[in-house]
Amino acid sequence: MKVAVLGYGTVGVGVYEMLQAAEGLEAGPVLVRPGKENEAFKVSRIEDIVGDPTVDAVAEVMGGVEPAFSYAMAAIRAGKHFVTSNKALVAAKGVELNRAAREAGVSFLFSAACGGGVPILHNLARAVRTDEILSVGGILNGTTNFMLDQMQSTGKDYADALREAQELGYAEADPTADVTGLDALRKIMLACAVAWGVLPKEGLLNEGIDSLSAADVKDFMARGFVCRLVASGQPAPEGKVSAYVEPVLVRAGDAESAVLKNYNMARYEGRNAGPIAMIGQGAGRYPTASAVLRDLSGICVGEAAMFPADCVEGVADNSAAAHAYYVRLPEACADAFPVREVLAEDGETLRVLTETVSVQKMHETARALRKANNAVFFAAVREG
Amino acid sequence: MKVAVLGYGTVGVGVYEMLQAAEGLEAGPVLVRPGKENEAFKVSRIEDIVGDPTVDAVAEVMGGVEPAFSYAMAAIRAGKHFVTSNKALVAAKGVELNRAAREAGVSFLFSAACGGGVPILHNLARAVRTDEILSVGGILNGTTNFMLDQMQSTGKDYADALREAQELGYAEADPTADVTGLDALRKIMLACAVAWGVLPKEGLLNEGIDSLSAADVKDFMARGFVCRLVASGQPAPEGKVSAYVEPVLVRAGDAESAVLKNYNMARYEGRNAGPIAMIGQGAGRYPTASAVLRDLSGICVGEAAMFPADCVEGVADNSAAAHAYYVRLPEACADAFPVREVLAEDGETLRVLTETVSVQKMHETARALRKANNAVFFAAVREG
Repeated sequence: MKVAVLGYGTVGVGVYEMLQAAEGLEAGPVLVRPGKENEAFKVSRIEDIVGDPTVDAVAEVMGGVEPAFSYAMAAIRAGKHFVTSNKALVAAKGVELNRAAREAGVSFLFSAACGGGVPILHNLARAVRTDEILSVGGILNGTTNFMLDQMQSTGKDYADALREAQELGYAEADPTADVTGLDALRKIMLACAVAWGVLPKEGLLNEGIDSLSAADVKDFMARGFVCRLVASGQPAPEGKVSAYVEPVLVRAGDAESAVLKNYNMARYEGRNAGPIAMIGQGAGRYPTASAVLRDLSGICVGEAAMFPADCVEGVADNSAAAHAYYVRLPEACADAFPVREVLAEDGETLRVLTETVSVQKMHETARALRKANNAVFFAAVREG
Repeated sequence: MKVAVLGYGTVGVGVYEMLQAAEGLEAGPVLVRPGKENEAFKVSRIEDIVGDPTVDAVAEVMGGVEPAFSYAMAAIRAGKHFVTSNKALVAAKGVELNRAAREAGVSFLFSAACGGGVPILHNLARAVRTDEILSVGGILNGTTNFMLDQMQSTGKDYADALREAQELGYAEADPTADVTGLDALRKIMLACAVAWGVLPKEGLLNEGIDSLSAADVKDFMARGFVCRLVASGQPAPEGKVSAYVEPVLVRAGDAESAVLKNYNMARYEGRNAGPIAMIGQGAGRYPTASAVLRDLSGICVGEAAMFPADCVEGVADNSAAAHAYYVRLPEACADAFPVREVLAEDGETLRVLTETVSVQKMHETARALRKANNAVFFAAVREG
């Protein structure tokens, strides 16, 4: 099967290299920006790929919704299988791509868009056919996990941890999507769509780690907790799903606490299989390229789709989710949440453990407090 | 696809139940012992399954090599897909079954034979097509993990932990295969065959946990270690593979230390994907049945094989594997190993940390010492 690659950045180079070595797969043309066609295999016009009858499949690793979406639709309509690592694309346009691919009778797979090298979506799609999925989630962003691990193991502050992540190539020049939890949110959107056939587009909640300080880390570590950025997805009534991302304090010794560096830990729970967790590198050239290659070789043995045929866009309903939270906020805002225990106060800043608060209320209240220029950090507390 | 089930024990009941609910799959006859045909769907003659043209696939969950092997060959030769959870069968006859299935043009899958509900073999087989596998292994026996967890979390001695495992249905009436490491060894044999096309049949080494005492646990836990029974597989020169099972002391806080109860943690490392670990229930009715069902539904979308076409039986070569070991032995045997550090001695019993010793030499020396009626416990020490 001859595979054209759209994009020749970090992941694209890995995919192209791996295609050279893969049995049953052949590297086709690679789409680069105009002016960058400095080698014979590079082309800069999408028509040279979509219109090439020898190309059987297209692997898109450019990122962004456009022009990736237009290229994807053109490839699919030209009868080419479509594989992507692009979570922004699938989160925005996955339902439409799924429908188009099924109409064209081609495969549409995107393992690399959630978990990097960790094959969570493939396994979820495989499990869905014979098991009922009760929940999905986990640590789905390697950049923030690296930063949290650095802050917790070395005492670094947020800015230093971010700088180090950027120097190592884990964080983009603009790290907004990672540190605000948006990247993890897109991934849990995909997992929800695979698990329950609903791609939630509204009502989603994401809190990242951009409010976290070295003082917070010092305080909750002294209490035996480790912070992880965790995505959660669950079915909700009336064909909705609950989907949100927030920091979670787990106990040192919990499985998540052993997920270090830029690793991911993606999980699902099946009614029959029970809880399944998968750990591996969530990003990087070769881990991500390996997921793209597994999808491409999967097409050769019949793998066709990850979203169910009747997958629809939907609305998130997080009203049933609720936890106790660890919150750091100004003392003047002490009455924002029902407090179970005051952990520390210094006349200005308060650290509290709340009673059980709904996820919706926690995220909304924090947003309102910040709008009024109050500094707030919060994290759900894993109890029991 | 209509599926006949061979065996109606713990797993068989789960498979039969799940087949009722699975879309695209249909429950066929179930093979039980003569005299047990107390319901219309039960038959006691294999001919009633093999000769039934409406049966498309056979799921074998009886256990044991015979008559399972004869039944499997009869089913395959009759053109039926064959799925099994039976590690003893695949470890003994996997190469022959693989060849027969490929000749007959039917699928031969056995996810449930390694990892229970943890889909390690499926993912390994999928990864092999585009990545080079550098190692396989992990915690592959839920019974012994449950016992170790009990001994370590409650201070129970070995006999009490075994009794509790039996009461909860995790250990068989005869627990020999579990506690000696033989069950985990069979599983790592399968993983080696999937990863490198060599099913090692000779030269294998397995040490279990049947020498472990409450005093050992107390001692190494005080030193910050947790014991896990770990299987290891790696490529070796001249088309051989290294494959062995032994207790390993990991640091509290290492990922394996968070694998509790009857859970498994199966892992592989790909040259491109990096290390991938999968955690879930390694045994039990529904987790194991869920793996069988995923294979059956996989056949409907084209999954055909886990062993490569040219898979052969081979010989294990463990000569390159070596570790430092924690050893408890009689003081009179103190010179059996090069000692790096004496950890404890009481005039009778010695606890030492050895220099790096080859796995081969460690297992052989312990066997020789025991033959001369010396009580020995040993565990590799995870360093660094």
